Amino acid sequence: MLPIAVDAMGGDHAPAEIVAGARQAVEELGLPVVLVGQPEAIGNAGGLDIVPASEVIGMQDDPAQGVRRKKDSSLVRAAEAVRDGRASAMVSAGNTGATMGAALLRMGRIKGVQRPGIATPIPVPGQTPTVLIDAGANAEATATYLLQFAQMGAAFASARYGIKRPKVALLSIGEEETKGTTLVKGARALLEDSGLRFIGNVEGRDLMSDVADVVVTDGFTGNVALKTLEGALKFLVNAVFTAFNSSEEAKSASAVLLDALAPVAGELDPDATGGAMLLGVEGVCIISHGSSSARAIVNAVRVAAEMVDGGLVGRLRDSLSGG
Amino acid sequence: MLPIAVDAMGGDHAPAEIVAGARQAVEELGLPVVLVGQPEAIGNAGGLDIVPASEVIGMQDDPAQGVRRKKDSSLVRAAEAVRDGRASAMVSAGNTGATMGAALLRMGRIKGVQRPGIATPIPVPGQTPTVLIDAGANAEATATYLLQFAQMGAAFASARYGIKRPKVALLSIGEEETKGTTLVKGARALLEDSGLRFIGNVEGRDLMSDVADVVVTDGFTGNVALKTLEGALKFLVNAVFTAFNSSEEAKSASAVLLDALAPVAGELDPDATGGAMLLGVEGVCIISHGSSSARAIVNAVRVAAEMVDGGLVGRLRDSLSGG
Repeated sequence: MLPIAVDAMGGDHAPAEIVAGARQAVEELGLPVVLVGQPEAIGNAGGLDIVPASEVIGMQDDPAQGVRRKKDSSLVRAAEAVRDGRASAMVSAGNTGATMGAALLRMGRIKGVQRPGIATPIPVPGQTPTVLIDAGANAEATATYLLQFAQMGAAFASARYGIKRPKVALLSIGEEETKGTTLVKGARALLEDSGLRFIGNVEGRDLMSDVADVVVTDGFTGNVALKTLEGALKFLVNAVFTAFNSSEEAKSASAVLLDALAPVAGELDPDATGGAMLLGVEGVCIISHGSSSARAIVNAVRVAAEMVDGGLVGRLRDSLSGG
Repeated sequence: MLPIAVDAMGGDHAPAEIVAGARQAVEELGLPVVLVGQPEAIGNAGGLDIVPASEVIGMQDDPAQGVRRKKDSSLVRAAEAVRDGRASAMVSAGNTGATMGAALLRMGRIKGVQRPGIATPIPVPGQTPTVLIDAGANAEATATYLLQFAQMGAAFASARYGIKRPKVALLSIGEEETKGTTLVKGARALLEDSGLRFIGNVEGRDLMSDVADVVVTDGFTGNVALKTLEGALKFLVNAVFTAFNSSEEAKSASAVLLDALAPVAGELDPDATGGAMLLGVEGVCIISHGSSSARAIVNAVRVAAEMVDGGLVGRLRDSLSGG
């Protein structure tokens, strides 16, 4: 396998945690990894090859301008490495919009794809995650975009989680087909005729359940839902830990419960998911969350390699023609 | 005060829990309440007056058809009681769409309001709730609707929580004004010129925080966010209780923690919020959630009375003219 290009400069804890994660991925998983970024910032690469890039697109940079102007940035160079056959996939925990832009402009779109979409796994402890697509690539969408997100999301759920005929649902505000926006009604009509295993409309409360394997929505609604979910979980986890630490007695009592809570906590940990995936470009592109730790990068590299091995891009291409 | 009309037939636990709640509200709070519904189904009204209504609009009924065809339904009769000056407010835990429809058709819109919106309090333990508007009345919106939701939401936050100059925010997918849909950008321009204390865009993760007092969005996004939040909280609360009951040792340990968790659990309990409020109609109309217990109805009656006393409808009217 060609190496996986890891953007060493992207993320809240870059480059230290990213480089550490890349090195761990090589050591633990035996996967080939190349780091992309400023050699002096990367420091000790532990023997990993470096694709040098002198510029960095920061979290606050405008994505479109950043990609256009910073041609020697780590994000642009990582996407070029995939395009030029020097890397098999790219992973970045940096600016999401710029990652999308670099992948789209340098790798190009899969033929027939109107817009790439971000597929984010929503944890469903004890079950395979629910794939939410689009989690934020396109603030505005058409019914055809949503159909393509459904096709690509189902192909991804098959490749990633081994689900043969993923259950695809449309995010709305009630199960009835009379509910929702013009966009939702238009997409529903297309999905019913799509040949996909379309199970109808679901609501926000179904995301963390096994009702659907793939939930389709526009990037505005998807991003709001994802951030709302993250906020609610973070809030409640904090409330529980505050209670656990509220007294010496509570501390001793909570020690007993940590074992029972550990599996749930593990599955809710965003570092464990392997990151979100940009679907619709000519290459495997993983968008890790900004606060990625070294372990998040290890998981992202592992998932990237699985998706390369599993022929994700070919499967996405086939999915659009109903294959 | 004129009595508060409680729809005895609406809700998963109607009529028993609703009647029990109405009776408790009279006994505990000394507020006047009238029940609306089928006298034989209501049974022992405990001395409360009954406005008879022979029909019921069920949860599965189409809202528009239900309101149009079932003219002797409890929902339509409750809204008429407010219109005709026989009741000061209405409370229903029944079909949300039909409640909106009955209130809108029978009470009418406040002059100048383009569309009523649903204001739902999102719990922020230790702080006043965040008012989310529109939580589902209108799947599609215009920038002007969002401006009016902001004006009415701020007036409601003042009346309900005593906040003098509520912080108003727009729900989007990033703080930057370049992010979001055409609708969000249009609304932002109107909000910046509105004279409201507009603090800019917020994300889904800010709903359960004290960043904003009022968060404005279209009813599709608002409903998805609300249901996602409910689903995430329910999921995590279940996971915690499963861990608490996972062994005899865990059960004893968790007993110690319940006291510390009780305040948070209490504030997250939907029965405690007093319900959502339909803003923009010529009367106080509370939409309680479908699974309302007697206690939820007591709280809804209490909040309805406070809003009548506080002159909510007049304040909403004034808010639209920048008052």
